[in-house]
Amino acid sequence: METIHTIDWMRQVAADARAKERVVGLVPTMGALHEGHLSLVREARRHCSPVVVSIFVNPTQFGPSEDFTKYPRTLETDRAELAALDVDYIFAPTPEEMYPAGFSTGVVVDGVSERLEGRSRPGHFRGVATVVLKLFEITQPRFAFFGRKDAQQLRIIQRMTSDLNLGIEVVSCPIMREADGLALSSRNAYLKGDERRAATALYRSLDAICGQIAAGECNPARLVAAMRSVLDSESGIKTDYAEIVDAETFEPASGLNKTCYAAIAARVGSTRLIDNALVEPIRGPIIGRISGPDGAPSGEQANGELRVTL
Amino acid sequence: METIHTIDWMRQVAADARAKERVVGLVPTMGALHEGHLSLVREARRHCSPVVVSIFVNPTQFGPSEDFTKYPRTLETDRAELAALDVDYIFAPTPEEMYPAGFSTGVVVDGVSERLEGRSRPGHFRGVATVVLKLFEITQPRFAFFGRKDAQQLRIIQRMTSDLNLGIEVVSCPIMREADGLALSSRNAYLKGDERRAATALYRSLDAICGQIAAGECNPARLVAAMRSVLDSESGIKTDYAEIVDAETFEPASGLNKTCYAAIAARVGSTRLIDNALVEPIRGPIIGRISGPDGAPSGEQANGELRVTL
Repeated sequence: METIHTIDWMRQVAADARAKERVVGLVPTMGALHEGHLSLVREARRHCSPVVVSIFVNPTQFGPSEDFTKYPRTLETDRAELAALDVDYIFAPTPEEMYPAGFSTGVVVDGVSERLEGRSRPGHFRGVATVVLKLFEITQPRFAFFGRKDAQQLRIIQRMTSDLNLGIEVVSCPIMREADGLALSSRNAYLKGDERRAATALYRSLDAICGQIAAGECNPARLVAAMRSVLDSESGIKTDYAEIVDAETFEPASGLNKTCYAAIAARVGSTRLIDNALVEPIRGPIIGRISGPDGAPSGEQANGELRVTL
Repeated sequence: METIHTIDWMRQVAADARAKERVVGLVPTMGALHEGHLSLVREARRHCSPVVVSIFVNPTQFGPSEDFTKYPRTLETDRAELAALDVDYIFAPTPEEMYPAGFSTGVVVDGVSERLEGRSRPGHFRGVATVVLKLFEITQPRFAFFGRKDAQQLRIIQRMTSDLNLGIEVVSCPIMREADGLALSSRNAYLKGDERRAATALYRSLDAICGQIAAGECNPARLVAAMRSVLDSESGIKTDYAEIVDAETFEPASGLNKTCYAAIAARVGSTRLIDNALVEPIRGPIIGRISGPDGAPSGEQANGELRVTL
């Protein structure tokens, strides 16, 4: 495994791999790796060689009052974990390498970027789309792997990749959860004392509507009320949004007849967390179950025609 | 020569060429080809094989009250001219192929896009940068050729290419002019009767300051006044802007000690035309002269330390 810090060298390595018809797989991360990231790396390893994992805490996707400076940076631990998974290259550029003086280009995805996270974090998705496009150009992957935890980010990357004809396959990977349901996130490291337990309210509210949908409830307003009821009953939590949205546009869903997300953002103390459940109309029987690490809650239930994946 | 209408096939052809280590050259055009475009194609032919010329009248770079529908479309004549220059591929997609339903991604270049043309034509450069990035992704060129007539567009494409790590060399080619100095443009076809003669005022105003600079004038305000004086004395012309701007930022220049453009936009009747002169500090003697077609004005003069290229 080689750690690369410069754009020129990373591009050269990727170009050489492509010239030999090898299939480059990219897993873009901000480091502070957890089992969620590692599941993406394992998926990349199954399909691609070489596997490139980028580690870059991207300043342009943080707002001025957000946690850019305190975001956990654990390069040595990350490196050991990636070596154990037989990763070929870590691409870890500096901010100066990625954004030299005079940098002024941005990629924007209208519509979906303006909803939910985009409304709460102005400029966030421009920062994300721009850095991901740069990483795509530098590492020239055939496949790129993203977690469904950041569902709106995933949708924006898919939209950008298709609109700009990038010729890259964007692979969506399941959410990894702790045994009590908390979605894995590098920001979970911020949770102090009782906050860790309070944080499970996000999962519990999604799990609650999972049960309701299985029992036949299809009305978005009533499902949103049910999510809010769980969140509001947890005093340590301040909800930013809890919505049922169309999985393509991220506009509020009028029903569950198209694929939707139940999406939540909430602040636990000073830590902002997000989570979601995927709600899909299905035709055939459900085959298999998505399992978290250590026998954590899986989260597939069906009410005959709907599948909910936590 | 093959004319390709679909993105998938164009991408396949380009990928095959790259896999054989051939050097793809792209000349992006909106068709209605004139000697300016053909000079780009000849330059591409000298350095690249295969040469791809795209012909696409891009709707997103026209404002709602601009000339998208009446923009000249001359595909059969264009095709004959390109065949005579031994072009390998014409890429001529439909608007629906380039912008399918749901398209919502844009590329923006802050700063330089907001000046001159950007101020007069809101959204124009977002349309240009986005379509050029798409064309780059589809045709995967190593070199792409642009005319200096659209100097601000050229700068924006260079900035985008560098900021997004596209790994493409953007080649700037000289302005081609008629015998009386009028810069070649597909929009010259709109000029009626006396407008054709009036239109030379753009060139004449640049030529006037060319003489002044050669005589030692270095004050941008006085040079702008000289340009305006020529433009204002031509009754058939309405000036949009006439400025001396820094060649990197397109901000007003405070002197001629850095590379600048003298840039003009003006309306002749209902036809909007642009032109510019490149003003560069030089150290050594001037080597060679840039010549237009048919012995048209070349336009290099030196005042010892400055070179002006019309």
